[in-house]
Amino acid sequence: MTARSDQDSFPYPVARIGIIGGGQLGRMMVKAAKQLGCTCTVLDPTPNSPAGQVSGHQIVANYQDAAALRELAESCDLTTFDLENIDSAILAELSREGRPIFPHPDLLAVVQDKLRQKEVLAAAGIPVAAFRSMPEPDAALCAEFGYPLVQKARRGGYDGRGVAVLRGPEDFASHLPVSSLIERFVPAAKELAVMVARARDGDCRSYPAVEMRVCPAQNILDQLLAPARISGELAAAAEQLAIRTVQALDGVGIFGIEMFLTPENDLLVNEVAPRTHNSGHYTIEACVTDQFEQHLRAIAGLPLGATDLLCPAAMVNLLGAPGHHGRPVIKGLRAALAIPGVSVHIYGKAATHPYRKMGHVTVLDTDLEQARCKAEQVRELIEITGEDHP
Amino acid sequence: MTARSDQDSFPYPVARIGIIGGGQLGRMMVKAAKQLGCTCTVLDPTPNSPAGQVSGHQIVANYQDAAALRELAESCDLTTFDLENIDSAILAELSREGRPIFPHPDLLAVVQDKLRQKEVLAAAGIPVAAFRSMPEPDAALCAEFGYPLVQKARRGGYDGRGVAVLRGPEDFASHLPVSSLIERFVPAAKELAVMVARARDGDCRSYPAVEMRVCPAQNILDQLLAPARISGELAAAAEQLAIRTVQALDGVGIFGIEMFLTPENDLLVNEVAPRTHNSGHYTIEACVTDQFEQHLRAIAGLPLGATDLLCPAAMVNLLGAPGHHGRPVIKGLRAALAIPGVSVHIYGKAATHPYRKMGHVTVLDTDLEQARCKAEQVRELIEITGEDHP
Repeated sequence: MTARSDQDSFPYPVARIGIIGGGQLGRMMVKAAKQLGCTCTVLDPTPNSPAGQVSGHQIVANYQDAAALRELAESCDLTTFDLENIDSAILAELSREGRPIFPHPDLLAVVQDKLRQKEVLAAAGIPVAAFRSMPEPDAALCAEFGYPLVQKARRGGYDGRGVAVLRGPEDFASHLPVSSLIERFVPAAKELAVMVARARDGDCRSYPAVEMRVCPAQNILDQLLAPARISGELAAAAEQLAIRTVQALDGVGIFGIEMFLTPENDLLVNEVAPRTHNSGHYTIEACVTDQFEQHLRAIAGLPLGATDLLCPAAMVNLLGAPGHHGRPVIKGLRAALAIPGVSVHIYGKAATHPYRKMGHVTVLDTDLEQARCKAEQVRELIEITGEDHP
Repeated sequence: MTARSDQDSFPYPVARIGIIGGGQLGRMMVKAAKQLGCTCTVLDPTPNSPAGQVSGHQIVANYQDAAALRELAESCDLTTFDLENIDSAILAELSREGRPIFPHPDLLAVVQDKLRQKEVLAAAGIPVAAFRSMPEPDAALCAEFGYPLVQKARRGGYDGRGVAVLRGPEDFASHLPVSSLIERFVPAAKELAVMVARARDGDCRSYPAVEMRVCPAQNILDQLLAPARISGELAAAAEQLAIRTVQALDGVGIFGIEMFLTPENDLLVNEVAPRTHNSGHYTIEACVTDQFEQHLRAIAGLPLGATDLLCPAAMVNLLGAPGHHGRPVIKGLRAALAIPGVSVHIYGKAATHPYRKMGHVTVLDTDLEQARCKAEQVRELIEITGEDHP
């Protein structure tokens, strides 16, 4: 039996959590934080942001506003974030002054720069696709490196922005005109993801490897299956690789590790998200401890929770319909909720736009294939249109 | 495959929900409501109530304030409640004016009066303990009815208040000096509870029968086990009885039906809670659809969700320690969270007092007995004290 130590005493609130970013990830984090006895302040430029609607307190400012970031960090016991696009230099300064910020701003700075991220992972012996720096677009370098390749902007990419697939020299014209890296195009058999939590004391736990299907046109997560339909051996290897990745970064908090499984059954780490992740939403319904609570446990110095899968799950995102803008209209909600095992999450965004993440749906079913079919049904049924549509 | 009908279109928000009562039940309901794409307004006399902390909007007023109740009902699409102690006559008036209030205020009026509640159930053929009206304390009536008996105040009882167990004539001195009913004391083998949801179209679903252990001194739920350790036949009978009870009341929403299982394996309905219930908290982690989302689906005219149990669970309440008042201090949180399967819920109440419900803990374990042991450990580990303690 675990003993209660003298340090194990928390006047309410257990911690005041500052969250940079007020989107859906912050929204779900606020819910978990309040359940654990924490209070939250959200920093986001949009008044009444999805997270601000539940936090009770929001600082309306952008993610590069030094004074606002300072106000947040100084008024909270712990600061964290739900997106990468933050001025990490300001956070590093606040951290040097002794403000607890997790994950550490130095890690954020590494991850923000996709070239440095790859360099650090490669140096730590983490298998990644071959890559090279391309400070400015360079047809000769691409030709020498060899097609097909993927060009990735060093900074600012998110949900498919900042990535170009160049299949041959004839595609070079569609390159991104920014400082970037080029990477071997991996013809993946599957795209996998593993959520990993690492505590302040180094305790590290992975969630089950899951399978992602990414929408090719928008490069947004389209469908997720938990667990991945791969052998137990491969799943264990993916989970170990994800843990090694987070350890290599000395990460504290939760991380989403995206990987490719090649046709030769090799695993290559593609990208690291230093935060809760779309591929971990299924943990809310399907796992003993969800990714949001797990992140808070990790950064607050509390013990990590169990990551066991209670039930197979499929998840689909609810994206704004093409051509639609304005106040969202949710069509097919009633029909979707009639399917057993369906949990609908609406993010409370005041306006939709094409492919905007407006919500997601998780489907539990003891049979994964059934869960997958139901998730497909839900995708057919639910449509998020906008009132401003002509 | 379910079809999408023309009526299946919801401009955001899906519904504006008014919740009378801002305690922990309202708090958890707000979370579920926002997930479903609803917005919430809470009515509660305590500023920054547990539910008000997450709703974003609270009307600070008491539950008998006619103008405030009207303001709530008129500014929301649907009004509901997380407690019974409301002026049901005002709600009935608002309902007659066409404001949708669920469960119906007439049902609330019946349940509020424990004598009428018993009369209605008995008239519908629901098995209940023998009872008699006792408009004022009457030793002769008690003697004629026979001891041991339970005296229950007709109005205002909650969490053990308003109940007196009179074991013999010598106990009559400790009677409650109010209009009441007297009831046969049932030497229960077990106390059971079943949550039942009933939709506006009459669709009715029960959750698994669960087992309650009630703290004798305070008469507050002490420990809950899901599922109840009874035969499948008895569990099915309890679930059917709970469904019949809600049908007898023509209830819409979720209901907690408390029952006695007698040593002769008879089931007697003890009390009906016309709302989410402490015995249903385990559904958040352990069931496909939790009681809060289920209530919202029922009252909003959406299809009910699956009530399957994903994993056995035990729950304990976190009560304020005797003798303690003021700002809560949570001791043993870290140790409790180190136990696998533990989910801690802190309600965000600004002050503790003896036996106040400050939070609860649900423990999942594939083995119910293990879950029970872990829940006992948690109870030993966590203590909610107060800073004003001498």
